[in-house]
Amino acid sequence: MARILLLGAGRSASSLIQYLLRYAPVENWQLTVGDVNPAHLAPVLAAHSEFARAVPFSIEEEDRLEELVAAADVVISMLPALLHLTVAHACLRHRRHLATASYVSDDIRALGPEAEAAGITLLMECGLDPGLDHMSAMAVLRHIRARGGQLTSFKSYCGGLMAPDSEGNNPWRYKFTWNPRNVVLAGQGTAKYLEHGHPRYIPYQQLFRRTELLDVPGFGQFEGYANRDSLSYRAPYGLDAIPTILRGTLRRPGYCAAWAALVHLGLTDDSGRLGNPATMTWAELLESYLPVLRPGLQLPLSTRLAQYLNLAPESEEISRLQWLGLWSDEVVGLADATPAQLLERLLTRKWQLQEGDHDMIVMQHLFEFELNGKTHRSTSSLVVLGDDATHTAMAKTVGLPLGMAVRRLLRGELTQRGVVIPTSPDLYEPILAELRADYGIDFVEQETTR
Amino acid sequence: MARILLLGAGRSASSLIQYLLRYAPVENWQLTVGDVNPAHLAPVLAAHSEFARAVPFSIEEEDRLEELVAAADVVISMLPALLHLTVAHACLRHRRHLATASYVSDDIRALGPEAEAAGITLLMECGLDPGLDHMSAMAVLRHIRARGGQLTSFKSYCGGLMAPDSEGNNPWRYKFTWNPRNVVLAGQGTAKYLEHGHPRYIPYQQLFRRTELLDVPGFGQFEGYANRDSLSYRAPYGLDAIPTILRGTLRRPGYCAAWAALVHLGLTDDSGRLGNPATMTWAELLESYLPVLRPGLQLPLSTRLAQYLNLAPESEEISRLQWLGLWSDEVVGLADATPAQLLERLLTRKWQLQEGDHDMIVMQHLFEFELNGKTHRSTSSLVVLGDDATHTAMAKTVGLPLGMAVRRLLRGELTQRGVVIPTSPDLYEPILAELRADYGIDFVEQETTR
Repeated sequence: MARILLLGAGRSASSLIQYLLRYAPVENWQLTVGDVNPAHLAPVLAAHSEFARAVPFSIEEEDRLEELVAAADVVISMLPALLHLTVAHACLRHRRHLATASYVSDDIRALGPEAEAAGITLLMECGLDPGLDHMSAMAVLRHIRARGGQLTSFKSYCGGLMAPDSEGNNPWRYKFTWNPRNVVLAGQGTAKYLEHGHPRYIPYQQLFRRTELLDVPGFGQFEGYANRDSLSYRAPYGLDAIPTILRGTLRRPGYCAAWAALVHLGLTDDSGRLGNPATMTWAELLESYLPVLRPGLQLPLSTRLAQYLNLAPESEEISRLQWLGLWSDEVVGLADATPAQLLERLLTRKWQLQEGDHDMIVMQHLFEFELNGKTHRSTSSLVVLGDDATHTAMAKTVGLPLGMAVRRLLRGELTQRGVVIPTSPDLYEPILAELRADYGIDFVEQETTR
Repeated sequence: MARILLLGAGRSASSLIQYLLRYAPVENWQLTVGDVNPAHLAPVLAAHSEFARAVPFSIEEEDRLEELVAAADVVISMLPALLHLTVAHACLRHRRHLATASYVSDDIRALGPEAEAAGITLLMECGLDPGLDHMSAMAVLRHIRARGGQLTSFKSYCGGLMAPDSEGNNPWRYKFTWNPRNVVLAGQGTAKYLEHGHPRYIPYQQLFRRTELLDVPGFGQFEGYANRDSLSYRAPYGLDAIPTILRGTLRRPGYCAAWAALVHLGLTDDSGRLGNPATMTWAELLESYLPVLRPGLQLPLSTRLAQYLNLAPESEEISRLQWLGLWSDEVVGLADATPAQLLERLLTRKWQLQEGDHDMIVMQHLFEFELNGKTHRSTSSLVVLGDDATHTAMAKTVGLPLGMAVRRLLRGELTQRGVVIPTSPDLYEPILAELRADYGIDFVEQETTR
């Protein structure tokens, strides 16, 4: 018997829990789910009480954490990423494995040697992004290398979007399926990547203006903007000498140009509060950002905004901003807030998921390689649609790879100890095969030669 | 006898020390100067050994701090602003007064009631900016109120610049006389002020494009950009209902437009490292920021930069950037640095004070008020030139008001306890009079009516 402790059972854990319940009787697992609100799990676990239970848990209760970790063989943390370190320390004290869907932080990386000495695995980056991105990219890279190809370019994009049937009349073709605050603050800083052997830097103000258009078979066009740090992917992928590498985020075409206007206006700044009253309207807020009109001149706010942004008043960007209500009489609703907090509040209303909406995960890798004197281009594309409001595409693509990785770990099929990410074929090949066979989560590959 | 402890005797403390030495025999003071490098004070203090001594001091030595504070009646902290809190706590423990030239931080403000109960004064904001700005503005405001004027607009600018004889052929007409890092990062976030009763917000990318031109009698034109928070000045100045209030920073004309180009390029970003080698040249760094040229096209970097920035290649902005060496073959010299760190390193070479250079402090307040049905505009302007490399304008204007405030405190002329800033006439009037009479530091006032 193996004992699994899952900490944190928020929305994105639904498909993971379903997966663990599916295999618990087969693999002889006992599952304990610790959550601040265990009552909401009762309906899910009710039919499985012989091998699953929910218990109250909050990260502040140190003794409780010790007790739960001590009573498990492997701990899966779906808590916010910042809390993984606390859990990892408890795992080290009790010599328990840990698995998460989050990036290896510097703090976690530093625990590697200690974990290795203790004979435990800190299995990180096993969700979607990071996770499935590593697995699928490494599978193609391995295939290219096996054919003798010399990789010259690797670009990889991922986005959490809306299924086509759920975009409605929203001109952004976007709703929040993930932490709104992270979406509002996305990209701040300087993006760095490599192109033809040269470093490339994009400052935040330019980031959403320098996008790339991508075609995803069956789902049309998307635009991608560069993530903050593409360079750190070289080492784990074994691509230290690659001339071109870029990681990016996908949106539907037009989103980025309109978002660039919000950035230019200053509405994504989160570094200081405005001292505004909560009763200020959006029209008043926008007015406060625009240059003052010459006395006597009267122009509608939308015209002044268009002039200020160097856009045509009837442009798509302006119509997207209008759809948000950027010059409406709606009140901003938060006193003394940062611009980013006000924008997040507005967007949370406008980009709210509706009953019956389905989300969509899109991932595309783009490879270029030299083989037998020819340049080959190949793409590997994935689209996953949400089943419903519980088993969203996000929950499936984050939770299933993580559950599958834990299953391999408990079956003794993963023998690496210390900090591990899913970049070796003995881990990713069976997971990709299981995703394909049992869940229809499958990458479409295309290749052209010239 | 009164015992004064001065902590921190860096460059900007020279005029303060001179002032304290001048009054020590007259006022019967014993002065102890604590500094990490007390040896450099030997020549200054040598002739005054009967009432002044230098001792080694570093903020890490807690016992030393306790011992020195216990043996003083008033402590003057010229340490970096972040360290004042530690000193203030020691002052509270030993019931000693504290004086600084720094802003009241939230932490210091919170100590107010405790300080009041202990009967000690935490005398803050007694340097130049903050300090002399408060004193001089309050003096004019008091005069306007006494005449029955109704203030409608208050703007106040200050800048640390170069004396006209020391600008040389530097087209920026600027050199570092203050913390270079603060100059590079100045203005990040959103500037907020009030204009005709409406809040006005300027995001960082626009800050250096929305400047105001000012005339300073005898010294020509300056341009001012808004400081981050002008609103917080309303309460201490008693201007809670004023329709227009703005605080800003002065530069010579042209500086801001060229600086805006550096901001637009992304070279002031300090939020992440670039992963660059130290041997990268400035031309290579600039190339990494510019959009990629179409294959086959060959254009000089300066032309591409001008196109990218929407500037004429022969514009003043481009020539200022060229003078900095922005596309030179000079190496950036720092590996894996933030853009702001690289820019600071470049500027520190280019904007270095030369032997014999004199600095200059410029301050101008602009008032508008209604009196007897007429609109009055008045300005109060100050220009202070540095005497030499030791007694710079910066050292004089920071140190002399602070020394004078401490003198009043020790003479018993300042009876307020708790956190105090120099906005009451019993403190600022004698200080302004002493600055005028003994140091020629005098504001020029002009008024027009229409």
